[in-house]
Amino acid sequence: MITKTVAELLSQDVTLQDVTVKGWVRTFRANRFIALNDGSTLNNIQCVVDFENFEESELKRVTTGAAIQVNGDLVESQGKGQSIEIQVKELAILGDSDPETYPIQPKKHSFEFLRENAHLRTRTNTFSAVMRLRSSLSFAIHKYFTENGFYNMHTPIVTGSDAEGAGEMFRVSTLDPKNPPLNDKGDVNYSEDFFGKETNLTVSGQLEAETYAMSLGKVYTFGPTFRAENSNTSRHLAEFWMIEPEVAFMDLTGNMDLAEDFLKSVLNYVLEHNKEDLTFLEKRLLDEEKTKPQAERSEMSLIEKMRFVVDNNFKRVSYTEAIDILRNSKPNKKKKFKYIINEWGADLQSEHERFLVEKHFKCPVILFDYPANIKAFYMRLNEDGKTVRAMDILFPGIGEMVGGSQREERLDVLVEKMKALDISEEELWWYLDLRKYGTAVHSGFGLGFERLVMFATGMNNIRDVIPYPRTPQNAEF
Amino acid sequence: MITKTVAELLSQDVTLQDVTVKGWVRTFRANRFIALNDGSTLNNIQCVVDFENFEESELKRVTTGAAIQVNGDLVESQGKGQSIEIQVKELAILGDSDPETYPIQPKKHSFEFLRENAHLRTRTNTFSAVMRLRSSLSFAIHKYFTENGFYNMHTPIVTGSDAEGAGEMFRVSTLDPKNPPLNDKGDVNYSEDFFGKETNLTVSGQLEAETYAMSLGKVYTFGPTFRAENSNTSRHLAEFWMIEPEVAFMDLTGNMDLAEDFLKSVLNYVLEHNKEDLTFLEKRLLDEEKTKPQAERSEMSLIEKMRFVVDNNFKRVSYTEAIDILRNSKPNKKKKFKYIINEWGADLQSEHERFLVEKHFKCPVILFDYPANIKAFYMRLNEDGKTVRAMDILFPGIGEMVGGSQREERLDVLVEKMKALDISEEELWWYLDLRKYGTAVHSGFGLGFERLVMFATGMNNIRDVIPYPRTPQNAEF
Repeated sequence: MITKTVAELLSQDVTLQDVTVKGWVRTFRANRFIALNDGSTLNNIQCVVDFENFEESELKRVTTGAAIQVNGDLVESQGKGQSIEIQVKELAILGDSDPETYPIQPKKHSFEFLRENAHLRTRTNTFSAVMRLRSSLSFAIHKYFTENGFYNMHTPIVTGSDAEGAGEMFRVSTLDPKNPPLNDKGDVNYSEDFFGKETNLTVSGQLEAETYAMSLGKVYTFGPTFRAENSNTSRHLAEFWMIEPEVAFMDLTGNMDLAEDFLKSVLNYVLEHNKEDLTFLEKRLLDEEKTKPQAERSEMSLIEKMRFVVDNNFKRVSYTEAIDILRNSKPNKKKKFKYIINEWGADLQSEHERFLVEKHFKCPVILFDYPANIKAFYMRLNEDGKTVRAMDILFPGIGEMVGGSQREERLDVLVEKMKALDISEEELWWYLDLRKYGTAVHSGFGLGFERLVMFATGMNNIRDVIPYPRTPQNAEF
Repeated sequence: MITKTVAELLSQDVTLQDVTVKGWVRTFRANRFIALNDGSTLNNIQCVVDFENFEESELKRVTTGAAIQVNGDLVESQGKGQSIEIQVKELAILGDSDPETYPIQPKKHSFEFLRENAHLRTRTNTFSAVMRLRSSLSFAIHKYFTENGFYNMHTPIVTGSDAEGAGEMFRVSTLDPKNPPLNDKGDVNYSEDFFGKETNLTVSGQLEAETYAMSLGKVYTFGPTFRAENSNTSRHLAEFWMIEPEVAFMDLTGNMDLAEDFLKSVLNYVLEHNKEDLTFLEKRLLDEEKTKPQAERSEMSLIEKMRFVVDNNFKRVSYTEAIDILRNSKPNKKKKFKYIINEWGADLQSEHERFLVEKHFKCPVILFDYPANIKAFYMRLNEDGKTVRAMDILFPGIGEMVGGSQREERLDVLVEKMKALDISEEELWWYLDLRKYGTAVHSGFGLGFERLVMFATGMNNIRDVIPYPRTPQNAEF
């Protein structure tokens, strides 16, 4: 007797005697056909019971969600819909599931309802497919960087600096929350706190990643980052995972090459390794889109969108060119854009990004050389004195997928910029050291992992691509 | 002209014309020999300059830590210590490094000093080797689990529950730290906090991982965890990374098999892929040990210790047997142990664990079936009513490397245990749901990643195996 997973059994091309499989009942039909799933694949294995050979009381316990163990012979299926099935000889109920109270019924549940039952939602096809894809993308990322000579680096989660200014931060403390110690000035005395100073959850590992790039050459982070912003939208999480590569001696062109190759590579990986899950999610998305008015439907299916990225060269366009294109575009002239583009310097909105990708260039777009004043302090100033070597990569449907830049490697220019923005040189002494000792051109980018998972699964709400979403007023589970 | 990394050049077995390489100067000897490193490997490439062909002012800027670009021909070396070298034709200083102030001089620095300069310490051989190994171990872990059908799962960092009781927690909040809002009872009103309740940094992703194991079958986490304990030792961090696999339908024996296979596999991976770094670190450790009294030196070298784990079967011993062995052992009878083992129920200390591994069994040891009252609430109670299906894996030198258990899958037993320990059923409703709907035997374990990195690098202080350690009074960088 050998124990196998459903995935192993379904990939078997021979029949087998006496196999054992354990899993959870998805459905039990006609007192005869058990659809059994164990998470190893989207697909269920059909287990056929001859009800005359089993106790009725036992069969009654074969309910949706019950854990069972089945022993039998793997045979060619006589029915439609599957090529093989198990003729059950022995059946054991491992864990019951009361059909009266089990939340995950064999019917369509709303995503809102499943979010409230996030501990059980991977028992549905949709969420098991999403989370398998998430896992697969995660591995593809580690694999890509490892094969390309990058070192994975764990940047700190608790940070004493708030320098990047990427957003509001969460305070981390062990002080008495009600009666914190105060100093002479009457302020909270953080020198008595655990770390001896005020600490927050990180918004980015980039600055620390730069320190390692400037010694190990090529590094990347893949870790959680945080924003304490009260954004209750389908695109924001308070806690999300970010990938941030950083490379010494690489300029912005190299950065674009890297990002393009990286994105194509990881999407190709899941196109190759997750066909079943992708096909299922593609169909799910098509069904969902059918409920929408024609105008709101996507022109491309899920896999078409992924192929659109993988098969096209990303078009590289300067911000200045892009502004010209947008200013002269039909939707701008006819005032169809919500935000009309009037002049150079405007920050682009999602509607503009999508226009460039989906209507104008019809391929993924890399915008570069943005106005300095809408970008972060560490981006390298161009010779024109008004733009920085920043890039954003724009994808169909989703808009910005990657944001990156060549970093300002010149100590004097960096210090001047920090002064202008009132960023503490004292706090970032170590970051400035990189420009004092062996400075060099270097670049990197950031990718919000959940954005990528949304793109590769077709899920529309970011809460549905992370196991336990953290959003304003919600830290359940 | 082609640009190559040092690793690429050194693995070249042919000579090459006109190669370019960029990196940082480690040393510049006799105004002629530059040892150049770019992080791609432990080794430097020797760049030979004919000083008559270069400006003296330029050569003066070739100082330790400076970033330079070299162009020349890759030729067989006439000197000792390297088989190939670059005959430099062009040299460009990319970033100076003032030898008067640069902290990383070409000499031995104390680890304490390097911790204060953690942003520069990977510019030393020791720390670049440690961090490359850390990265390699990280990838080996992802690779092992992926190849064995596990899904990577990102469990939440901010958590509303404090149920595991694994240690003191850090509070996460956006409330006014000085004047927090109070409720009617005069307590801090967390309903006004960002997440609408009191939240902390996670101590473990296990409970959430169980939810996914009970639908996807085999999952693992690899993420940061936190302990707000005021432990200023060489073995504790406030922020560290943990790996936690969790598998449905797997009992404690399966758990031991998995952990043993996993540990051997990831150590084998670095033995194969990181030979240079390991050889360097082994020598470093030997040098360090020479400064110690004979009695304190390790009997095995770094690689011998790793082979000791990889090549031996792990001895599986019940806690009860182990207590008998320890009680009757020489160091116990002669009162050489700091903590004398008198009776069943005692918690084992590092000295006992190391005795079992290094002196008694002379192989890695898995202890199992621990007394229930020294282990966590979720561990499965044995039929004897007093032990639980827990296991600890003990390694030479370091003691406990892995802690795991079969989980209590029986709702009634689990609820009784939670009641006894005053753990809120209301808060863990979702965890109990797993036992209500399709419960089954399942198991998992936790591995502190830094422990593993210490073991595989021979570093003695946990602060030296993570980029930016977080400890009491320290959240620098």
